[in-house]
Amino acid sequence: MAQPLPTTNSINLAILFRHEDKQIKLAAGETLFKEGDKGEEAYVMLSGEADIKVGERVVELAAEGTILGEMALIDTEPRAATVTARTECTLAVIDGKRFNHLVQQTSLFAIIVMRVMVRRLRRMDAGL
Amino acid sequence: MAQPLPTTNSINLAILFRHEDKQIKLAAGETLFKEGDKGEEAYVMLSGEADIKVGERVVELAAEGTILGEMALIDTEPRAATVTARTECTLAVIDGKRFNHLVQQTSLFAIIVMRVMVRRLRRMDAGL
Repeated sequence: MAQPLPTTNSINLAILFRHEDKQIKLAAGETLFKEGDKGEEAYVMLSGEADIKVGERVVELAAEGTILGEMALIDTEPRAATVTARTECTLAVIDGKRFNHLVQQTSLFAIIVMRVMVRRLRRMDAGL
Repeated sequence: MAQPLPTTNSINLAILFRHEDKQIKLAAGETLFKEGDKGEEAYVMLSGEADIKVGERVVELAAEGTILGEMALIDTEPRAATVTARTECTLAVIDGKRFNHLVQQTSLFAIIVMRVMVRRLRRMDAGL
């Protein structure tokens, strides 16, 4: 029988991905990806903070445990936002193949990604 | 090995859910749920069209195969939008337990829900 979905607070992607093989560092001010770019990777913020901008508007301050870049892997369309490090950031890199594997094999990962997207949708709705 | 995620066009939720036990009909003008309501069910539009409104703004015209009301099941927060039938609508009803079961047991369902949310996020981004 399906269990209730776990509460968001019990999950921190930064802990789940801290030993991920592929990691990158950004200096403050560096851009992870730009709106309109082709996207082939998603990222989990292991430490640091980054601005997520759509056009000139900062729509989110991404912090530890946030997933970034997942939209382009889900629908294979270009990046919907620009992400720029506000502080030094360390990120785990999840390529498309690994992302697909995680979604298909690990329902917890799919649930976390859905929770992040719902939070973003609610924030956008609240701004209308 | 994980397969590539199926393309959206190959999936129609209305076909997957057309034999769902619990179905409801709305007459044109009837409201399915209202912004701020507690949400305990999601719906798949089997036929008809409905307006999804946030405040006074129509953010989407929901048509056959669309999922509605999934956000409140994912994060257990109140409804983010109001859905009102534009034509007569038939909807499959997915309660929270079944939704959780589908997400956890059927990665295809999780992927479809994620695709719908990405499409909605992109539309919101484009409107900024």
